[in-house]
Amino acid sequence: MRIDIITVLPELLESPLSHSIVKRAQDKSLVDIHIHNLRDYAVGKHRRVDDYAFGFGAGMVMQIEPIDRVISKLKAERNYDEVIFTTPDGEQFDQPMANRLSMAENLIILCGHYKGVDYRVREHLITKEISIGDYVLTGGELPAAIITDAVIRLIPGAIGDEQSALSDSFQDNLLAPPVYTRPAEYKGWRVPEIFLSGHERKIHEWEMQQALERTKKLRPNLLNEK
Amino acid sequence: MRIDIITVLPELLESPLSHSIVKRAQDKSLVDIHIHNLRDYAVGKHRRVDDYAFGFGAGMVMQIEPIDRVISKLKAERNYDEVIFTTPDGEQFDQPMANRLSMAENLIILCGHYKGVDYRVREHLITKEISIGDYVLTGGELPAAIITDAVIRLIPGAIGDEQSALSDSFQDNLLAPPVYTRPAEYKGWRVPEIFLSGHERKIHEWEMQQALERTKKLRPNLLNEK
Repeated sequence: MRIDIITVLPELLESPLSHSIVKRAQDKSLVDIHIHNLRDYAVGKHRRVDDYAFGFGAGMVMQIEPIDRVISKLKAERNYDEVIFTTPDGEQFDQPMANRLSMAENLIILCGHYKGVDYRVREHLITKEISIGDYVLTGGELPAAIITDAVIRLIPGAIGDEQSALSDSFQDNLLAPPVYTRPAEYKGWRVPEIFLSGHERKIHEWEMQQALERTKKLRPNLLNEK
Repeated sequence: MRIDIITVLPELLESPLSHSIVKRAQDKSLVDIHIHNLRDYAVGKHRRVDDYAFGFGAGMVMQIEPIDRVISKLKAERNYDEVIFTTPDGEQFDQPMANRLSMAENLIILCGHYKGVDYRVREHLITKEISIGDYVLTGGELPAAIITDAVIRLIPGAIGDEQSALSDSFQDNLLAPPVYTRPAEYKGWRVPEIFLSGHERKIHEWEMQQALERTKKLRPNLLNEK
């Protein structure tokens, strides 16, 4: 898989994309991430990529031309499954969407910044608008890092212990049950007795019951999506 | 405001917390961010902070003792409004929650990692569990960066153009209307004629109507929350 990220703040993405599983997946050549500085595609000597919004509102808007240039260049080199724009009014990112995207071959992610992007970019150049949640951030860089992380860890081989990804929250539309580790008692707080029994079937039953109860209580909507 | 972030991967947070508005807010002393490496609070010479999960599942679990040590140390130094844990089954992060947290004085954010954290941490040490969305990530570091970014930009003075934050998506339970900037025509794609009229009242009416229509279509739930 190849992911091209277009941003006005490439430095912001440095550390999230160079550690942990995202780094390991790149080292193993499971994914190839390319960061493009939008300013390299700016028009004119001032390398401007934004301008005042039409109308009377405050804030700067990202211009269409530099974005069109970089996307057109990339699309001339290979086919892309999706050209993604991260925006709070996009389709809500969730685990099923992460699963689908993890099967893509080539993805472009355009990070919004400032007051937003000229709407013609969204109408003519973007194929998928994604929101990671109902809140406003300084830019689309962290959402791009979130999407990249969620998608990459689903590529076979990306995480060492594949069983661990399968039992994650959401993969079976259930939240994960509580987990515990040593010591069995700390400051008088004990792990549930069942774990000390060593009775595998009973422990599994307890975990399944906890997963169901927690999902019913905390995310009842997940159960209806089955 | 002071934010203490506890993590096993402090390097991952470097670039998200040292650019753009988050950097500027720190430079202006509007916020004071401290990153704590959990390994510095580990027990024993191997600096382990995780251990095998009780039961028969795969994956490592973060131990309670190092976490208790760092949180206890911080709480002995000052009062905290919330001790936050980032987890996919937490309360859903949204703009009203960001608004409330932006008024806090001191916050701790514990980043989960591996298979999760010993559940006794969540029962006894955490006061607020937050999910940034229904998807699984490698760790809680990016969610901590997301919460930090969303909260800090709401502190008065953090963004230059305060009018701009007020007209963001969600602040009035409406999505933002489309924005456009120069050129008025690009490759035959024109901005809506209304923007070229210079008629302020009509432009405002058009924007309000677009905001309402987009919210009805894309996030009808926001309108019911009024």
